[in-house]
Amino acid sequence: MNSFGNIFRVAVFGESHGACVGVTLDGVPPGIPLTTEDFLPDLERRKGGIQKGTTPRKEDDLPVFKSGIFNGFTTGAPITILFENSNIRSLDYEAQKAIPRPGHADFVAHEKFNGFEDYRGSGHFSARLTVGLVAAGVIAKKILSKIDIKATIIEVGGEKNIEAGLQKGIDAKDSVGGIIECIAKNIPVGWGEPFWDNMESMIAHAMFAIPAVKGVEFGAGFQAAKMFGSDHNDAIINEEGKTKTNNAGGIVGGISNGNDLIFRIAVKPTSSTPKMQESFNVETRKMESFSVKGRHDLCVALRAPVIVEAMTALVLADFYMIDKLRK
Amino acid sequence: MNSFGNIFRVAVFGESHGACVGVTLDGVPPGIPLTTEDFLPDLERRKGGIQKGTTPRKEDDLPVFKSGIFNGFTTGAPITILFENSNIRSLDYEAQKAIPRPGHADFVAHEKFNGFEDYRGSGHFSARLTVGLVAAGVIAKKILSKIDIKATIIEVGGEKNIEAGLQKGIDAKDSVGGIIECIAKNIPVGWGEPFWDNMESMIAHAMFAIPAVKGVEFGAGFQAAKMFGSDHNDAIINEEGKTKTNNAGGIVGGISNGNDLIFRIAVKPTSSTPKMQESFNVETRKMESFSVKGRHDLCVALRAPVIVEAMTALVLADFYMIDKLRK
Amino acid sequence: MNSFGNIFRVAVFGESHGACVGVTLDGVPPGIPLTTEDFLPDLERRKGGIQKGTTPRKEDDLPVFKSGIFNGFTTGAPITILFENSNIRSLDYEAQKAIPRPGHADFVAHEKFNGFEDYRGSGHFSARLTVGLVAAGVIAKKILSKIDIKATIIEVGGEKNIEAGLQKGIDAKDSVGGIIECIAKNIPVGWGEPFWDNMESMIAHAMFAIPAVKGVEFGAGFQAAKMFGSDHNDAIINEEGKTKTNNAGGIVGGISNGNDLIFRIAVKPTSSTPKMQESFNVETRKMESFSVKGRHDLCVALRAPVIVEAMTALVLADFYMIDKLRK
Amino acid sequence: MNSFGNIFRVAVFGESHGACVGVTLDGVPPGIPLTTEDFLPDLERRKGGIQKGTTPRKEDDLPVFKSGIFNGFTTGAPITILFENSNIRSLDYEAQKAIPRPGHADFVAHEKFNGFEDYRGSGHFSARLTVGLVAAGVIAKKILSKIDIKATIIEVGGEKNIEAGLQKGIDAKDSVGGIIECIAKNIPVGWGEPFWDNMESMIAHAMFAIPAVKGVEFGAGFQAAKMFGSDHNDAIINEEGKTKTNNAGGIVGGISNGNDLIFRIAVKPTSSTPKMQESFNVETRKMESFSVKGRHDLCVALRAPVIVEAMTALVLADFYMIDKLRK
Repeated sequence: MNSFGNIFRVAVFGESHGACVGVTLDGVPPGIPLTTEDFLPDLERRKGGIQKGTTPRKEDDLPVFKSGIFNGFTTGAPITILFENSNIRSLDYEAQKAIPRPGHADFVAHEKFNGFEDYRGSGHFSARLTVGLVAAGVIAKKILSKIDIKATIIEVGGEKNIEAGLQKGIDAKDSVGGIIECIAKNIPVGWGEPFWDNMESMIAHAMFAIPAVKGVEFGAGFQAAKMFGSDHNDAIINEEGKTKTNNAGGIVGGISNGNDLIFRIAVKPTSSTPKMQESFNVETRKMESFSVKGRHDLCVALRAPVIVEAMTALVLADFYMIDKLRK
Repeated sequence: MNSFGNIFRVAVFGESHGACVGVTLDGVPPGIPLTTEDFLPDLERRKGGIQKGTTPRKEDDLPVFKSGIFNGFTTGAPITILFENSNIRSLDYEAQKAIPRPGHADFVAHEKFNGFEDYRGSGHFSARLTVGLVAAGVIAKKILSKIDIKATIIEVGGEKNIEAGLQKGIDAKDSVGGIIECIAKNIPVGWGEPFWDNMESMIAHAMFAIPAVKGVEFGAGFQAAKMFGSDHNDAIINEEGKTKTNNAGGIVGGISNGNDLIFRIAVKPTSSTPKMQESFNVETRKMESFSVKGRHDLCVALRAPVIVEAMTALVLADFYMIDKLRK
Repeated sequence: MNSFGNIFRVAVFGESHGACVGVTLDGVPPGIPLTTEDFLPDLERRKGGIQKGTTPRKEDDLPVFKSGIFNGFTTGAPITILFENSNIRSLDYEAQKAIPRPGHADFVAHEKFNGFEDYRGSGHFSARLTVGLVAAGVIAKKILSKIDIKATIIEVGGEKNIEAGLQKGIDAKDSVGGIIECIAKNIPVGWGEPFWDNMESMIAHAMFAIPAVKGVEFGAGFQAAKMFGSDHNDAIINEEGKTKTNNAGGIVGGISNGNDLIFRIAVKPTSSTPKMQESFNVETRKMESFSVKGRHDLCVALRAPVIVEAMTALVLADFYMIDKLRK
Repeated sequence: MNSFGNIFRVAVFGESHGACVGVTLDGVPPGIPLTTEDFLPDLERRKGGIQKGTTPRKEDDLPVFKSGIFNGFTTGAPITILFENSNIRSLDYEAQKAIPRPGHADFVAHEKFNGFEDYRGSGHFSARLTVGLVAAGVIAKKILSKIDIKATIIEVGGEKNIEAGLQKGIDAKDSVGGIIECIAKNIPVGWGEPFWDNMESMIAHAMFAIPAVKGVEFGAGFQAAKMFGSDHNDAIINEEGKTKTNNAGGIVGGISNGNDLIFRIAVKPTSSTPKMQESFNVETRKMESFSVKGRHDLCVALRAPVIVEAMTALVLADFYMIDKLRK
């Protein structure tokens, strides 16, 4: 259950403070040129660090190609890419172990895996695993050369002005959430499968796999529930299926309709807030106050747009492949 | 790509005005007692018809068991259940064929399937296919005997008072959308897979497969993006993982945390509004005004709660099975 | 786990003496013309009945199209085809129930499904399920219009003369087995995936799903183990990959090499021999002698070639689809 | 399509002369103790080198754990294990590139991957990938603690005396094939799925993924086709399903029947024979004589038993997991 996609498939593995995190891609066509440089811009975007409110982990985040690439091109065999972890601080996490952090997977992971989970820095549940996804997204974007995918943060801490939203968090000495909008242009008509693997289901599936995402909506989204049908319906105006409005966000019947794909995701505030919090200490069996130490983002949504783009690209690359079956 | 679930798997087939719609369930344990009567209450809820604003298709909607059930019990072999279509009116749809209806899959289906799609009443894209899902949901609910799943419509046409929302649509001679909230109680800690097949991804995947759904949010959902971390975090208060608040909607790290699962979906207004609309006539190659004839719901969200429950049950039954692997 | 294929997927359901047996095909391209008549020749071959040694069940075996076919063409949506069971004789099987028949699935099915299995005439384990596969094979053969698949029985009861082999069984008042050879011509170079889903693995997987198959070999097969490398290797003689010999049976590295695909399967003698046999009566808890009553084939291998062709076609159709991904 | 198994899933990646070969295991339960030492005996068996007729590649073959193992135990997260390639000799393969070697995947890989394949030492098609499978098999064997799996070579070069068979090859300055028999004891009744994923299909699928395997047979296998039904049928003699004979090889109806699982595989002679061979030079477009240089086994079957055991363990571990679903 650890892979996603029907033809262009992506599997992730690794832990935050283990040897590495990594990704394996199956179903990548042969002949795609790939160099380390291709990966750097998106990997850099994920690291963040320049913008107010991000305090990136000190990792080089250089992709190590382990298979499926030869003489600078994909071979058609499975591609495995690793990101070695160098900045490992296991001891930091021993102290915290008895007190499952609110909002984190500590408690559920411990229960689910009978106490054998790698608990250091969220282990396999860490957002660090998204570095592999961003790398996979770079390959997917190459496959989708005619499609333009762009995700931007449109709201932070309830403010449409991003700087103001961040300042609100800084002033409150607290973490804040945000909303990201993603638009993909030039998707042909007909991508998405009729029922289960329709485009909305597949994109939502991928989005909710990004840590901290708590909502996904397409086009008018939740606002659609408040509209009249005659207002919401997008009138088709030509034979290519171009519509007058785009309340559907480019998807009807679960299938792309040739208009821009538009969706938004809600990202919760960083669980590791600098504020004092309470949780149940499983050793003392009492509630306890504590504050999360160490490097943490004021707003995880800031670094998420490139991950959202990558995930979107992974889903679209799979549909691109499926579309070839029609030919 | 026409099935869903990892162990408890559900496949649908059929068309609105073809011979039947149906569902095949794979991975159902042997020994579950099943009678026709077990299916009737939920099938009746899906039909609607009593409440203002639903005008149900005249079908008996009696499940026909074709395989996997013997002497009143599931056998462990695949279960196929059909719902024969008797109320077929093919001719109604010939006239409309040249004008793809806005908000419907007509245009995309025609493009995707090179003109070979069954276009009658949305064909394979019809909401009629959900009758099979409701039947599947009945079986899933039997498996989940200790879990209580309840979906309710909490908003219609932007109004929290359902009657008022429906009246708004009736007055405007237009269709309206709505919001449904689903709560599932008594889910054990630890359901959901760490990354791709986490519980939010799987539920969202299933929800967006329901026709007309345009948004899904868990717990505080989109509101979470406006909160501070210290407000959003749910403090753990005992060793069972009970939390003081439930902004997470019962899921952290993609895994159930033992609190109520809570999510909401946005349902767009019925695409077939009684109002005059415009679309592009592919034969005359001109924009044209038309109104959709025939039986149609004022608000499709009214009949959706039982489908939402069924889909939730299908996802949870799959996780219930996966959970057995830990034993 | 009840479906097969990566893109062109086949699922079976039903029981020998239940309502029907059936098949659902997913991933079939739209626009393939299909009529009932297309199915009759292969269905007739499966029934047997003319040749000495087959005593076919009295069923019409007419395919009932339930979905995915419209106006005589495939639509691209899932295709479900049923074969209703009319010749049901449930009572015949009550008497036998306490004594699991040797060579049949009676004992294992009872254990596996905790006593809830449909035990009538092998239930879900019956060779009757192959009727759906033959129907699926007809569709697959249409897709593979340029490929010629032909399976023939080449040995019965250890005799290369089929009639002599059958007579041997008749004289001994016993059942006999046989060997079937299948040759597929005009498969392009490059079908099959490098590792797990190579062509030999996929064909063998399908073949062993046919009841009574106990061995599969490609090209020189078991004889290859006795050869020198210089004798077994097939020298490539032109740029299309044509080889001087074909000891590999058309597959190297698991991938088709452009030469004829050749393989053989071993079919065990019909388990339901007319001879007296012994088994353990689970009620009396004693060994007991009994003979299997009713209609049974002298040699099940006689009816198997069309099933072997169908299964081969299903595998090849899947590879045909996968091959499109390269374009 | 690069993974295998329904719940306990195995994916392989890597190339013979790339950075590494590796394996990812998904669905491994948490809490299994694992040390490097656990892997050494089986990895050593795969290397061969002591027995006449094997000339192993000089690699340490030490497993490098990259994920899913923490503090000496499996965590329940995906396990990735790498084997770095140190003994890489890329230049050796440039000269051979124009002449696809008979019996190898050179020609088909070049066609399938449009010339982008890593052609060095068979690249992704190399038997070196089996080192990852052997490692995976070690973990699977730990899960199957009560089951005893043992594969032995029972024939080489057509001789039942292994030494004689090898000497035959040495004398002829040619390579030889062999037959391996695998017996697994203590498999409970009821493993295997009724139709597609029955035990014979799954084992055969795995076996044919081992390079050079050209035949698989269960129990009496091809000999069964020559027997009478009354001779082949295994009489059940007690309530545990113990049978008097075991012509079925422990599987009826595709399901384990509680008796020993017995099967044999045919391994073709090593394609890289020291003898002069002919092939088509794609550059000169002429037939050409050549001999394969470098380190190669006289008989690849010699090193295969541990791979056969590993593959068997992978299939059985998957069934072991599926069996938990019944509880």
